Amino acid sequence: MPITLKDVAERAGVSRSAVSRTFTEGASVSLKTRKKVEKAAADLGYSPNALASSLTTGRTKLIGLILNNFQNPLFLEVFDLFTRSLQDRGLRPLLVNLSQETEPEASLRMLRQYSVDAVIVASSTLSPEFSMAFQEAQIPVVHSFGRFASAPRVNVVGIDNVECGRMAARTLKARGYTRIGFLGGPREATTTIDRRKGFLEESATQSNLVVSESFATAYSFDAGRAEMLDLLKGDRAEAYFCGDDVLSIGALSAVADHGLNVPEDIGIIGLNDMEMARWENINLTTIRQPIRQIIASSIEQVVAMLEDPTRMPEARLFPCEIIERGTLRPLRT
Amino acid sequence: MPITLKDVAERAGVSRSAVSRTFTEGASVSLKTRKKVEKAAADLGYSPNALASSLTTGRTKLIGLILNNFQNPLFLEVFDLFTRSLQDRGLRPLLVNLSQETEPEASLRMLRQYSVDAVIVASSTLSPEFSMAFQEAQIPVVHSFGRFASAPRVNVVGIDNVECGRMAARTLKARGYTRIGFLGGPREATTTIDRRKGFLEESATQSNLVVSESFATAYSFDAGRAEMLDLLKGDRAEAYFCGDDVLSIGALSAVADHGLNVPEDIGIIGLNDMEMARWENINLTTIRQPIRQIIASSIEQVVAMLEDPTRMPEARLFPCEIIERGTLRPLRT
Repeated sequence: MPITLKDVAERAGVSRSAVSRTFTEGASVSLKTRKKVEKAAADLGYSPNALASSLTTGRTKLIGLILNNFQNPLFLEVFDLFTRSLQDRGLRPLLVNLSQETEPEASLRMLRQYSVDAVIVASSTLSPEFSMAFQEAQIPVVHSFGRFASAPRVNVVGIDNVECGRMAARTLKARGYTRIGFLGGPREATTTIDRRKGFLEESATQSNLVVSESFATAYSFDAGRAEMLDLLKGDRAEAYFCGDDVLSIGALSAVADHGLNVPEDIGIIGLNDMEMARWENINLTTIRQPIRQIIASSIEQVVAMLEDPTRMPEARLFPCEIIERGTLRPLRT
Repeated sequence: MPITLKDVAERAGVSRSAVSRTFTEGASVSLKTRKKVEKAAADLGYSPNALASSLTTGRTKLIGLILNNFQNPLFLEVFDLFTRSLQDRGLRPLLVNLSQETEPEASLRMLRQYSVDAVIVASSTLSPEFSMAFQEAQIPVVHSFGRFASAPRVNVVGIDNVECGRMAARTLKARGYTRIGFLGGPREATTTIDRRKGFLEESATQSNLVVSESFATAYSFDAGRAEMLDLLKGDRAEAYFCGDDVLSIGALSAVADHGLNVPEDIGIIGLNDMEMARWENINLTTIRQPIRQIIASSIEQVVAMLEDPTRMPEARLFPCEIIERGTLRPLRT
């Protein structure tokens, strides 16, 4: 039989209402009574029912965490950091696996049923409109890894993907490559659109550069491999900026199949710096997204929203950096 | 303003109690009333509050999902399948990231606060005692990827790790290797203990086999690499059974650093068949764990427990299979 509030009240020799007030944040109860109740609760192994008490406090401490990137190994780390950081603050992640779904209705309905205090959308492929649906339903929301906007309509924490594209092109130019390619993710993804934009902008600043572009059907190993196998049939570029690390690793495997050497015959630079990029048998030069900072900042923003739900939406940007490994030729000096 | 039960009752022209009964599983309500209520609810966009209604039904539809393997890329797939399968059944995963923690008290307290209907412990490294703590607290529990026991004291779904060890040794023997090694995970992990046991048992059936053993400090790329770098300093075996795929990939990278070829100079077989094992630039021969079946069966078991909490604990075992790729020499014929 579970221990009830009544059992605690009896053992402590106080009223049930006194027990209830002891466990309700902000409710008035004398120090003496609180001590009696806490001792009785500890003796009996009683813990207040979070759901029942949420009916009085209006807070469930549940945070909806919406994820859809289960094909990307980076997200194991993202997921680990989010869940640990939420727990450290006494918040509980209620998970929504969005998979193929891109409309917010079902998630919104479900998360409302559980009266979540706030929602974190952790996805680089969902649109700002997706997150806005929660805001419109007056649920505090933060879009992590979302698309940067200079006039944000919803809280967003992430990187500037246009700048990442520029950074990739600058890196290839500095290494003396003259025929460079963009091997992007799916054409319609905002990350692809933004990374391509920056890459082409920066490439256009040097007149003798030959720039090509192509797109993989997904951010996945298989799609990166298939696209690179195709590219290798024609006039290939000297180096490619691949949409992300998992695409890059697929591309590297295609290059190896063709008996070509990296970086001697062909160069590759990725984006993310996921765990496998540093594996010595991959050793991928890439652009690192500061995952830890993005997640810490997202959670700070959620907590700030809980304290002041009337806050204006805010965009937070974190800089990326080049991680030099073995898949590009050295800098020209 | 959120739509309330009262609004629905008014619009439907029925009592509040009728609305409540419509949304309470198993409660009695006439078809005519149900239809009126459902129409009014749809018109208003009303969804019943799961937490409030749990106070009457005694069911929250929340399932505690306890994970601690965030270093193992296999778990991204595990996590994806669990969360999707739970959602498909209208159940909601409330996540506990256990990380370094190995005692059940904190998770138990937390999951009790949220009145979860059941708990799934998805971990190959946690002990049966961990899961039993939930059972003792009368919360239905299933331990997925847990240690097999012929007289199970708690529900467990997984593989027979002793048999996997035998399978690895048989595979190496069939390929004519005569000096073979076990490169296990942490010594104290039950998976290491069981896999080693089977490996040594099967090796002992052939008199001319030289068998060595060593242990990595964790199931991780770095630990596998470090241990193999160490092994390569001495008299190495011709082929190794590594504790899992991520250890194997670390070991492969150490082998490559030494300028040795796989499978010509050294053979490696892993365990799990995680996504990266099939990447062409890894191409790891391994023993596949039937992840999908284990997860589907775990969820079936949870549902069965919800229907009949007095069920006896049950152990469910799934067979593993060898996946032939490029890291062992071919079968002798």
